[in-house]
Amino acid sequence: MTRYKALISYDGHDFAGFQRQPHARSVQEEIEKTLTRINKGQPIVIHGAGRTDSGVHALGQVIHFDLPSARDEEKLRFALDTQTPEDIDVISVEEVTEDFHARYKPHSKTYEFLVDIGRPKNPMMRHYATHYPYPLEIPLMEQAIKALEGTHDFTGFTASGTSVENKVRTITKASLTFDEQRNFLVFTFSGNGFLYKQIRNMVGTLLKIGNKRMPVNQIERILEEKDRQLAGPTAAPNGLYLKEINYEE
Amino acid sequence: MTRYKALISYDGHDFAGFQRQPHARSVQEEIEKTLTRINKGQPIVIHGAGRTDSGVHALGQVIHFDLPSARDEEKLRFALDTQTPEDIDVISVEEVTEDFHARYKPHSKTYEFLVDIGRPKNPMMRHYATHYPYPLEIPLMEQAIKALEGTHDFTGFTASGTSVENKVRTITKASLTFDEQRNFLVFTFSGNGFLYKQIRNMVGTLLKIGNKRMPVNQIERILEEKDRQLAGPTAAPNGLYLKEINYEE
Repeated sequence: MTRYKALISYDGHDFAGFQRQPHARSVQEEIEKTLTRINKGQPIVIHGAGRTDSGVHALGQVIHFDLPSARDEEKLRFALDTQTPEDIDVISVEEVTEDFHARYKPHSKTYEFLVDIGRPKNPMMRHYATHYPYPLEIPLMEQAIKALEGTHDFTGFTASGTSVENKVRTITKASLTFDEQRNFLVFTFSGNGFLYKQIRNMVGTLLKIGNKRMPVNQIERILEEKDRQLAGPTAAPNGLYLKEINYEE
Repeated sequence: MTRYKALISYDGHDFAGFQRQPHARSVQEEIEKTLTRINKGQPIVIHGAGRTDSGVHALGQVIHFDLPSARDEEKLRFALDTQTPEDIDVISVEEVTEDFHARYKPHSKTYEFLVDIGRPKNPMMRHYATHYPYPLEIPLMEQAIKALEGTHDFTGFTASGTSVENKVRTITKASLTFDEQRNFLVFTFSGNGFLYKQIRNMVGTLLKIGNKRMPVNQIERILEEKDRQLAGPTAAPNGLYLKEINYEE
Protein backbone atom coordinates (compact mmCIF):
# COMPACT_ATOMS: atom_id res chain seq x y z
CA MET A 1 0.00 0.00 0.00
CA THR A 2 1.34 3.39 -0.93
CA ARG A 3 0.01 6.66 0.41
CA TYR A 4 -0.22 9.76 -1.76
CA LYS A 5 -0.75 13.37 -0.84
CA ALA A 6 -2.22 15.60 -3.56
CA LEU A 7 -2.62 19.35 -3.85
CA ILE A 8 -5.82 20.24 -5.69
CA SER A 9 -7.84 23.29 -6.67
CA TYR A 10 -11.46 23.48 -7.64
CA ASP A 11 -14.24 25.81 -8.64
CA GLY A 12 -16.86 25.26 -5.94
CA HIS A 13 -19.78 26.72 -7.90
CA ASP A 14 -21.19 23.46 -9.24
CA PHE A 15 -20.42 21.38 -6.17
CA ALA A 16 -22.56 20.78 -3.10
CA GLY A 17 -19.25 20.98 -1.24
CA PHE A 18 -16.10 18.94 -0.80
CA GLN A 19 -17.62 16.09 1.17
CA ARG A 20 -19.40 13.15 -0.42
CA GLN A 21 -23.17 13.13 0.12
CA PRO A 22 -26.13 11.38 -1.47
CA HIS A 23 -27.89 12.92 -4.47
CA ALA A 24 -25.46 15.83 -4.84
CA ARG A 25 -22.25 16.42 -6.74
CA SER A 26 -19.20 16.64 -4.49
CA VAL A 27 -15.46 17.11 -5.07
CA GLN A 28 -14.75 13.98 -3.04
CA GLU A 29 -17.04 11.82 -5.15
CA GLU A 30 -15.60 13.07 -8.45
CA ILE A 31 -12.01 12.40 -7.38
CA GLU A 32 -12.89 9.02 -5.87
CA LYS A 33 -14.68 7.99 -9.07
CA THR A 34 -11.57 8.85 -11.08
CA LEU A 35 -9.17 7.13 -8.67
CA THR A 36 -11.36 4.04 -8.61
CA ARG A 37 -11.30 3.92 -12.40
CA ILE A 38 -7.51 4.32 -12.41
CA ASN A 39 -7.37 1.52 -9.80
CA LYS A 40 -9.23 -0.89 -12.13
CA GLY A 41 -12.54 -0.56 -10.33
CA GLN A 42 -11.31 -1.23 -6.80
CA PRO A 43 -12.79 1.57 -4.65
CA ILE A 44 -10.46 4.27 -3.34
CA VAL A 45 -11.42 6.70 -0.57
CA ILE A 46 -9.84 10.14 -0.20
CA HIS A 47 -9.44 12.32 2.88
CA GLY A 48 -9.38 16.10 2.62
CA ALA A 49 -7.68 18.57 4.95
CA GLY A 50 -10.86 20.58 5.23
CA ARG A 51 -14.46 20.40 4.14
CA THR A 52 -15.47 23.31 2.01
CA ASP A 53 -19.17 24.17 1.79
CA SER A 54 -21.33 24.38 -1.29
CA GLY A 55 -20.10 27.16 -3.58
CA VAL A 56 -16.78 27.60 -1.73
CA HIS A 57 -13.64 27.37 -3.86
CA ALA A 58 -10.19 25.93 -3.25
CA LEU A 59 -6.84 27.04 -4.59
CA GLY A 60 -4.84 24.74 -2.31
CA GLN A 61 -6.87 21.91 -0.80
CA VAL A 62 -4.83 18.88 0.30
CA ILE A 63 -6.08 15.29 0.12
CA HIS A 64 -4.52 11.87 0.75
CA PHE A 65 -5.38 8.37 -0.42
CA ASP A 66 -3.85 4.91 -0.56
CA LEU A 67 -3.15 2.85 -3.67
CA PRO A 68 -2.28 -0.86 -3.61
CA SER A 69 1.06 -0.25 -5.30
CA ALA A 70 3.45 2.59 -6.07
CA ARG A 71 2.94 4.77 -9.15
CA ASP A 72 4.95 7.40 -10.93
CA GLU A 73 3.92 10.65 -9.22
CA GLU A 74 3.71 12.82 -12.33
CA LYS A 75 1.86 10.20 -14.37
CA LEU A 76 -0.63 9.79 -11.53
CA ARG A 77 -1.05 13.59 -11.27
CA PHE A 78 -1.59 13.91 -15.00
CA ALA A 79 -4.12 11.05 -15.08
CA LEU A 80 -6.06 12.56 -12.18
CA ASP A 81 -5.90 16.08 -13.56
CA THR A 82 -7.10 15.14 -17.02
CA GLN A 83 -9.67 12.52 -16.00
CA THR A 84 -11.45 14.57 -13.32
CA PRO A 85 -14.00 17.16 -14.54
CA GLU A 86 -12.70 20.53 -15.68
CA ASP A 87 -13.69 22.28 -12.44
CA ILE A 88 -11.09 20.26 -10.53
CA ASP A 89 -7.35 20.66 -11.13
CA VAL A 90 -4.69 18.41 -9.64
CA ILE A 91 -1.61 20.52 -9.04
CA SER A 92 0.81 18.01 -7.55
CA VAL A 93 0.94 14.44 -6.26
CA GLU A 94 3.65 13.07 -3.98
CA GLU A 95 4.24 9.81 -2.20
CA VAL A 96 4.14 10.23 1.59
CA THR A 97 4.72 7.95 4.56
CA GLU A 98 1.73 6.07 5.95
CA ASP A 99 1.54 8.27 9.02
CA PHE A 100 0.55 11.29 6.90
CA HIS A 101 -3.11 12.23 7.28
CA ALA A 102 -4.44 15.27 5.40
CA ARG A 103 -6.95 16.09 8.12
CA TYR A 104 -5.30 14.98 11.38
CA LYS A 105 -1.69 15.94 10.83
CA PRO A 106 -1.39 19.32 12.55
CA HIS A 107 -1.60 22.18 10.10
CA SER A 108 -2.70 25.73 9.61
CA LYS A 109 -5.18 26.80 6.97
CA THR A 110 -5.35 30.06 5.08
CA TYR A 111 -8.62 31.27 3.60
CA GLU A 112 -9.27 34.27 1.41
CA PHE A 113 -12.57 36.02 0.97
CA LEU A 114 -13.04 38.26 -2.08
CA VAL A 115 -15.54 41.11 -2.08
CA ASP A 116 -16.21 42.85 -5.38
CA ILE A 117 -16.86 46.50 -4.55
CA GLY A 118 -16.76 47.63 -8.17
CA ARG A 119 -19.55 49.55 -9.79
CA PRO A 120 -20.61 48.27 -12.16
CA LYS A 121 -20.07 44.77 -10.90
CA ASN A 122 -18.32 42.31 -13.15
CA PRO A 123 -20.71 39.53 -14.31
CA MET A 124 -17.71 37.28 -15.04
CA MET A 125 -16.91 37.28 -11.32
CA ARG A 126 -20.42 36.62 -9.97
CA HIS A 127 -19.52 33.10 -8.82
CA TYR A 128 -16.00 34.05 -7.71
CA ALA A 129 -16.42 37.09 -5.48
CA THR A 130 -19.26 38.46 -3.38
CA HIS A 131 -20.57 41.73 -4.73
CA TYR A 132 -21.14 44.43 -2.12
CA PRO A 133 -22.70 47.55 -3.65
CA TYR A 134 -23.01 49.67 -0.47
CA PRO A 135 -20.61 52.29 0.92
CA LEU A 136 -17.70 50.89 2.92
CA GLU A 137 -15.13 52.59 5.13
CA ILE A 138 -12.10 50.39 4.75
CA PRO A 139 -10.18 51.87 7.74
CA LEU A 140 -13.01 50.83 10.11
CA MET A 141 -12.75 47.23 8.87
CA GLU A 142 -8.94 47.30 9.06
CA GLN A 143 -9.23 48.38 12.67
CA ALA A 144 -11.96 45.86 13.58
CA ILE A 145 -10.34 42.82 11.93
CA LYS A 146 -7.33 42.94 14.24
CA ALA A 147 -9.53 41.91 17.20
CA LEU A 148 -10.00 38.51 15.54
CA GLU A 149 -6.32 37.62 15.80
CA GLY A 150 -5.27 35.48 18.75
CA THR A 151 -6.91 32.64 20.68
CA HIS A 152 -10.63 33.16 21.27
CA ASP A 153 -13.86 31.28 21.78
CA PHE A 154 -15.53 31.84 18.40
CA THR A 155 -19.01 30.61 19.45
CA GLY A 156 -20.54 33.93 18.36
CA PHE A 157 -19.23 33.45 14.82
CA THR A 158 -20.37 29.90 14.16
CA ALA A 159 -23.75 28.49 13.16
CA SER A 160 -25.82 27.48 16.17
CA GLY A 161 -26.41 23.78 16.67
CA THR A 162 -22.98 22.58 15.49
CA SER A 163 -21.80 19.41 17.19
CA VAL A 164 -18.29 20.67 17.92
CA GLU A 165 -17.90 21.18 21.69
CA ASN A 166 -14.73 23.21 21.88
CA LYS A 167 -15.09 26.45 19.99
CA VAL A 168 -11.72 27.91 20.95
CA ARG A 169 -9.51 28.50 17.95
CA THR A 170 -6.40 30.53 17.20
CA ILE A 171 -6.25 32.96 14.31
CA THR A 172 -2.63 33.79 13.55
CA LYS A 173 -3.40 36.30 10.81
CA ALA A 174 -6.48 38.35 9.96
CA SER A 175 -5.92 41.06 7.38
CA LEU A 176 -7.64 43.15 4.77
CA THR A 177 -6.07 44.42 1.58
CA PHE A 178 -7.50 46.26 -1.39
CA ASP A 179 -6.85 44.96 -4.89
CA GLU A 180 -7.07 48.21 -6.82
CA GLN A 181 -6.93 46.67 -10.27
CA ARG A 182 -9.93 44.43 -9.76
CA ASN A 183 -11.71 46.65 -7.23
CA PHE A 184 -11.74 43.77 -4.76
CA LEU A 185 -11.40 43.68 -1.00
CA VAL A 186 -9.32 40.66 -0.01
CA PHE A 187 -9.84 39.35 3.52
CA THR A 188 -7.20 36.81 4.60
CA PHE A 189 -7.47 34.53 7.63
CA SER A 190 -4.89 31.99 8.79
CA GLY A 191 -5.34 29.71 11.78
CA ASN A 192 -5.23 26.22 13.19
CA GLY A 193 -8.85 25.52 12.38
CA PHE A 194 -12.12 27.27 11.68
CA LEU A 195 -15.65 26.49 12.81
CA TYR A 196 -18.63 25.90 10.52
CA LYS A 197 -19.40 29.15 8.65
CA GLN A 198 -16.98 31.05 10.91
CA ILE A 199 -15.19 32.92 8.15
CA ARG A 200 -18.36 33.86 6.32
CA ASN A 201 -19.85 35.14 9.58
CA MET A 202 -16.71 37.13 10.39
CA VAL A 203 -16.76 38.69 6.91
CA GLY A 204 -20.50 39.45 7.17
CA THR A 205 -19.83 41.23 10.46
CA LEU A 206 -16.83 43.16 9.12
CA LEU A 207 -18.88 44.39 6.16
CA LYS A 208 -21.59 45.65 8.53
CA ILE A 209 -18.91 47.51 10.49
CA GLY A 210 -17.48 48.98 7.27
CA ASN A 211 -20.99 50.03 6.29
CA LYS A 212 -21.32 51.72 9.72
CA ARG A 213 -24.30 49.65 10.77
CA MET A 214 -22.27 48.13 13.62
CA PRO A 215 -19.69 49.82 15.87
CA VAL A 216 -16.01 49.12 15.29
CA ASN A 217 -15.72 47.25 18.62
CA GLN A 218 -18.53 44.82 17.73
CA ILE A 219 -16.02 42.01 17.09
CA GLU A 220 -14.72 42.26 20.67
CA ARG A 221 -18.27 42.22 22.00
CA ILE A 222 -19.20 39.08 20.00
CA LEU A 223 -16.06 37.31 21.23
CA GLU A 224 -16.88 38.24 24.82
CA GLU A 225 -20.62 37.57 24.80
CA LYS A 226 -20.42 34.50 22.46
CA ASP A 227 -23.76 35.47 20.98
CA ARG A 228 -24.41 34.72 17.28
CA GLN A 229 -27.27 37.26 17.32
CA LEU A 230 -24.74 40.06 17.74
CA ALA A 231 -22.85 39.14 14.56
CA GLY A 232 -23.65 40.18 11.00
CA PRO A 233 -25.23 37.96 8.34
CA THR A 234 -23.37 35.02 6.85
CA ALA A 235 -21.54 36.24 3.74
CA ALA A 236 -22.28 34.29 0.55
CA PRO A 237 -20.02 31.31 -0.21
CA ASN A 238 -18.99 32.52 -3.66
CA GLY A 239 -16.26 34.83 -2.28
CA LEU A 240 -14.57 32.19 -0.11
CA TYR A 241 -11.39 30.34 -1.12
CA LEU A 242 -9.43 27.70 0.80
CA LYS A 243 -6.06 29.08 -0.21
CA GLU A 244 -3.37 27.11 1.49
CA ILE A 245 -2.68 24.32 4.00
CA ASN A 246 0.61 24.35 5.88
CA TYR A 247 1.54 21.17 7.73
CA GLU A 248 3.80 21.34 10.77
CA GLU A 249 7.12 19.62 10.24
CA MET B 1 -41.09 56.87 -29.77
CA THR B 2 -38.06 57.31 -27.57
CA ARG B 3 -34.64 55.85 -28.29
CA TYR B 4 -32.43 54.50 -25.54
CA LYS B 5 -28.76 53.61 -25.54
CA ALA B 6 -27.63 51.09 -22.93
CA LEU B 7 -24.20 49.98 -21.77
CA ILE B 8 -24.19 46.29 -20.88
CA SER B 9 -21.78 43.59 -19.77
CA TYR B 10 -22.20 39.86 -19.98
CA ASP B 11 -20.54 36.55 -19.30
CA GLY B 12 -20.42 34.92 -22.72
CA HIS B 13 -19.89 31.39 -21.46
CA ASP B 14 -23.50 30.24 -21.59
CA PHE B 15 -24.46 32.19 -24.71
CA ALA B 16 -24.24 31.10 -28.34
CA GLY B 17 -23.19 34.70 -28.94
CA PHE B 18 -24.74 38.17 -28.91
CA GLN B 19 -26.93 37.75 -31.98
CA ARG B 20 -30.35 36.13 -31.91
CA GLN B 21 -30.49 32.72 -33.60
CA PRO B 22 -32.88 29.78 -33.55
CA HIS B 23 -32.52 27.03 -30.94
CA ALA B 24 -29.69 28.72 -29.04
CA ARG B 25 -29.47 31.15 -26.12
CA SER B 26 -28.31 34.61 -27.17
CA VAL B 27 -27.76 37.89 -25.35
CA GLN B 28 -30.02 39.67 -27.82
CA GLU B 29 -32.90 37.28 -27.21
CA GLU B 30 -32.65 37.53 -23.42
CA ILE B 31 -32.65 41.33 -23.45
CA GLU B 32 -35.44 41.51 -26.04
CA LYS B 33 -37.57 39.12 -23.96
CA THR B 34 -37.13 41.34 -20.92
CA LEU B 35 -37.80 44.57 -22.84
CA THR B 36 -40.88 43.07 -24.44
CA ARG B 37 -42.21 42.11 -21.00
CA ILE B 38 -41.50 45.61 -19.69
CA ASN B 39 -43.32 46.94 -22.77
CA LYS B 40 -46.47 44.95 -21.90
CA GLY B 41 -45.85 42.27 -24.49
CA GLN B 42 -45.29 44.53 -27.50
CA PRO B 43 -42.10 43.24 -29.16
CA ILE B 44 -38.92 45.33 -28.86
CA VAL B 45 -35.85 44.77 -31.01
CA ILE B 46 -32.35 45.76 -29.90
CA HIS B 47 -29.29 46.62 -31.97
CA GLY B 48 -25.79 45.95 -30.68
CA ALA B 49 -22.58 47.78 -31.58
CA GLY B 50 -20.85 44.48 -32.27
CA ARG B 51 -21.65 40.82 -32.48
CA THR B 52 -19.65 38.77 -30.05
CA ASP B 53 -19.22 35.05 -30.79
CA SER B 54 -20.17 32.13 -28.61
CA GLY B 55 -18.16 32.19 -25.37
CA VAL B 56 -16.89 35.76 -25.90
CA HIS B 57 -17.51 38.18 -23.03
CA ALA B 58 -18.40 41.87 -22.91
CA LEU B 59 -17.51 44.46 -20.32
CA GLY B 60 -18.81 47.38 -22.38
CA GLN B 61 -21.15 46.37 -25.19
CA VAL B 62 -23.52 49.14 -26.37
CA ILE B 63 -27.07 48.52 -27.58
CA HIS B 64 -29.97 50.74 -28.59
CA PHE B 65 -33.73 50.22 -28.77
CA ASP B 66 -36.92 52.24 -29.12
CA LEU B 67 -39.79 52.40 -26.63
CA PRO B 68 -43.22 53.89 -27.46
CA SER B 69 -42.90 56.47 -24.68
CA ALA B 70 -40.26 58.04 -22.44
CA ARG B 71 -39.20 56.31 -19.21
CA ASP B 72 -37.11 57.27 -16.24
CA GLU B 73 -33.58 56.20 -17.23
CA GLU B 74 -32.51 54.78 -13.87
CA LYS B 75 -35.78 52.91 -13.32
CA LEU B 76 -35.48 51.41 -16.79
CA ARG B 77 -31.86 50.44 -16.15
CA PHE B 78 -32.78 48.83 -12.82
CA ALA B 79 -35.71 46.92 -14.32
CA LEU B 80 -33.53 45.62 -17.16
CA ASP B 81 -30.61 44.77 -14.88
CA THR B 82 -32.69 42.84 -12.38
CA GLN B 83 -35.06 41.15 -14.85
CA THR B 84 -32.42 39.87 -17.26
CA PRO B 85 -30.56 36.66 -16.25
CA GLU B 86 -27.64 36.99 -13.87
CA ASP B 87 -25.04 36.65 -16.62
CA ILE B 88 -26.14 39.97 -18.11
CA ASP B 89 -25.64 43.29 -16.30
CA VAL B 90 -27.08 46.60 -17.43
CA ILE B 91 -24.64 49.31 -16.41
CA SER B 92 -26.36 52.43 -17.71
CA VAL B 93 -29.31 53.54 -19.81
CA GLU B 94 -29.67 56.95 -21.40
CA GLU B 95 -32.13 58.56 -23.74
CA VAL B 96 -30.57 59.44 -27.08
CA THR B 97 -31.73 61.19 -30.21
CA GLU B 98 -33.31 59.11 -32.93
CA ASP B 99 -30.27 59.38 -35.17
CA PHE B 100 -28.19 57.35 -32.74
CA HIS B 101 -27.47 53.83 -33.98
CA ALA B 102 -25.30 51.52 -31.86
CA ARG B 103 -23.87 49.79 -34.89
CA TYR B 104 -23.77 52.41 -37.63
CA LYS B 105 -22.74 55.50 -35.72
CA PRO B 106 -18.97 55.68 -36.27
CA HIS B 107 -17.07 54.31 -33.32
CA SER B 108 -13.94 52.53 -32.26
CA LYS B 109 -13.96 49.26 -30.36
CA THR B 110 -11.49 48.02 -27.81
CA TYR B 111 -11.07 44.30 -27.16
CA GLU B 112 -8.98 42.58 -24.55
CA PHE B 113 -7.72 39.03 -24.72
CA LEU B 114 -6.60 37.37 -21.47
CA VAL B 115 -4.11 34.50 -21.49
CA ASP B 116 -3.56 32.66 -18.21
CA ILE B 117 0.10 31.64 -18.18
CA GLY B 118 0.04 30.52 -14.53
CA ARG B 119 1.11 27.08 -13.42
CA PRO B 120 -0.92 25.65 -11.90
CA LYS B 121 -3.78 27.16 -13.84
CA ASN B 122 -6.69 28.61 -11.93
CA PRO B 123 -9.87 26.51 -12.42
CA MET B 124 -12.00 29.52 -11.43
CA MET B 125 -10.76 31.29 -14.56
CA ARG B 126 -11.23 28.47 -17.07
CA HIS B 127 -14.13 30.25 -18.82
CA TYR B 128 -12.60 33.73 -18.44
CA ALA B 129 -9.06 33.42 -19.76
CA THR B 130 -7.33 31.09 -22.19
CA HIS B 131 -4.76 28.91 -20.49
CA TYR B 132 -1.43 28.62 -22.28
CA PRO B 133 0.91 26.18 -20.54
CA TYR B 134 3.87 26.42 -22.94
CA PRO B 135 6.99 28.61 -22.74
CA LEU B 136 6.53 32.16 -24.03
CA GLU B 137 9.03 34.89 -24.75
CA ILE B 138 7.07 38.03 -24.04
CA PRO B 139 9.57 40.43 -25.74
CA LEU B 140 9.11 38.59 -29.07
CA MET B 141 5.33 39.12 -28.85
CA GLU B 142 5.76 42.76 -27.80
CA GLN B 143 7.90 43.31 -30.87
CA ALA B 144 5.60 41.40 -33.26
CA ILE B 145 2.32 42.98 -32.09
CA LYS B 146 3.40 46.45 -33.22
CA ALA B 147 3.19 45.38 -36.88
CA LEU B 148 -0.59 45.05 -36.46
CA GLU B 149 -1.04 48.76 -35.77
CA GLY B 150 -2.07 50.92 -38.70
CA THR B 151 -4.26 50.40 -41.75
CA HIS B 152 -3.89 46.97 -43.33
CA ASP B 153 -5.76 44.36 -45.32
CA PHE B 154 -6.42 41.75 -42.62
CA THR B 155 -7.54 38.97 -45.01
CA GLY B 156 -4.88 36.64 -43.59
CA PHE B 157 -6.34 36.99 -40.12
CA THR B 158 -10.00 36.34 -40.86
CA ALA B 159 -11.91 33.12 -41.39
CA SER B 160 -12.10 32.16 -45.05
CA GLY B 161 -15.48 32.38 -46.72
CA THR B 162 -16.69 35.51 -44.94
CA SER B 163 -19.04 37.61 -47.00
CA VAL B 164 -17.35 40.93 -46.16
CA GLU B 165 -15.69 42.29 -49.30
CA ASN B 166 -13.44 44.97 -47.91
CA LYS B 167 -11.00 43.55 -45.40
CA VAL B 168 -9.04 46.74 -44.84
CA ARG B 169 -9.25 47.90 -41.23
CA THR B 170 -7.32 50.29 -39.00
CA ILE B 171 -5.91 49.21 -35.65
CA THR B 172 -5.08 52.29 -33.59
CA LYS B 173 -3.62 50.37 -30.69
CA ALA B 174 -2.20 46.87 -30.32
CA SER B 175 -0.41 46.22 -27.05
CA LEU B 176 0.61 43.51 -24.65
CA THR B 177 0.93 43.90 -20.89
CA PHE B 178 1.63 41.42 -18.14
CA ASP B 179 -0.65 41.28 -15.11
CA GLU B 180 1.80 39.96 -12.53
CA GLN B 181 -0.73 39.40 -9.79
CA ARG B 182 -2.93 37.10 -11.83
CA ASN B 183 -0.17 35.75 -14.07
CA PHE B 184 -2.13 36.90 -17.11
CA LEU B 185 -1.02 38.28 -20.43
CA VAL B 186 -3.38 41.05 -21.51
CA PHE B 187 -3.56 41.75 -25.24
CA THR B 188 -5.40 44.97 -26.08
CA PHE B 189 -6.64 45.94 -29.55
CA SER B 190 -8.46 49.14 -30.51
CA GLY B 191 -9.72 49.91 -33.95
CA ASN B 192 -12.55 51.03 -36.19
CA GLY B 193 -13.78 47.49 -36.78
CA PHE B 194 -12.60 43.91 -36.71
CA LEU B 195 -13.26 41.01 -39.06
CA TYR B 196 -14.78 37.67 -38.09
CA LYS B 197 -12.36 35.87 -35.74
CA GLN B 198 -9.66 38.45 -36.50
CA ILE B 199 -8.62 39.06 -32.90
CA ARG B 200 -8.56 35.39 -31.99
CA ASN B 201 -6.44 34.67 -35.08
CA MET B 202 -4.06 37.53 -34.27
CA VAL B 203 -3.66 36.25 -30.69
CA GLY B 204 -3.17 32.66 -31.89
CA THR B 205 -0.40 33.89 -34.18
CA LEU B 206 1.25 36.03 -31.49
CA LEU B 207 1.30 33.05 -29.10
CA LYS B 208 3.02 30.94 -31.76
CA ILE B 209 5.61 33.69 -32.19
CA GLY B 210 6.11 33.90 -28.41
CA ASN B 211 6.52 30.12 -28.33
CA LYS B 212 9.16 30.47 -31.10
CA ARG B 213 7.33 28.31 -33.56
CA MET B 214 6.93 31.26 -35.93
CA PRO B 215 9.42 34.04 -36.70
CA VAL B 216 8.87 37.47 -35.18
CA ASN B 217 8.19 38.99 -38.65
CA GLN B 218 5.38 36.49 -39.39
CA ILE B 219 2.73 39.18 -38.80
CA GLU B 220 4.19 41.35 -41.56
CA ARG B 221 4.30 38.37 -43.90
CA ILE B 222 0.63 37.49 -43.23
CA LEU B 223 -0.42 41.10 -43.86
CA GLU B 224 1.54 41.13 -47.12
CA GLU B 225 0.59 37.72 -48.47
CA LYS B 226 -3.01 37.81 -47.13
CA ASP B 227 -2.85 34.06 -46.58
CA ARG B 228 -4.77 32.55 -43.64
CA GLN B 229 -2.59 29.43 -43.87
CA LEU B 230 0.39 31.45 -42.66
CA ALA B 231 -1.32 32.52 -39.44
CA GLY B 232 -1.53 30.62 -36.18
CA PRO B 233 -4.58 28.76 -34.88
CA THR B 234 -7.70 30.62 -33.74
CA ALA B 235 -7.36 31.27 -30.01
CA ALA B 236 -10.28 30.03 -27.87
CA PRO B 237 -13.16 32.48 -27.28
CA ASN B 238 -13.02 32.29 -23.46
CA GLY B 239 -10.19 34.85 -23.23
CA LEU B 240 -11.85 37.50 -25.41
CA TYR B 241 -13.66 40.55 -24.00
CA LEU B 242 -15.41 43.39 -25.84
CA LYS B 243 -14.14 46.04 -23.47
CA GLU B 244 -15.26 49.41 -24.73
CA ILE B 245 -17.04 51.24 -27.54
CA ASN B 246 -16.15 54.86 -28.21
CA TYR B 247 -18.50 56.82 -30.47
CA GLU B 248 -17.19 59.75 -32.45
CA GLU B 249 -18.70 63.04 -31.39
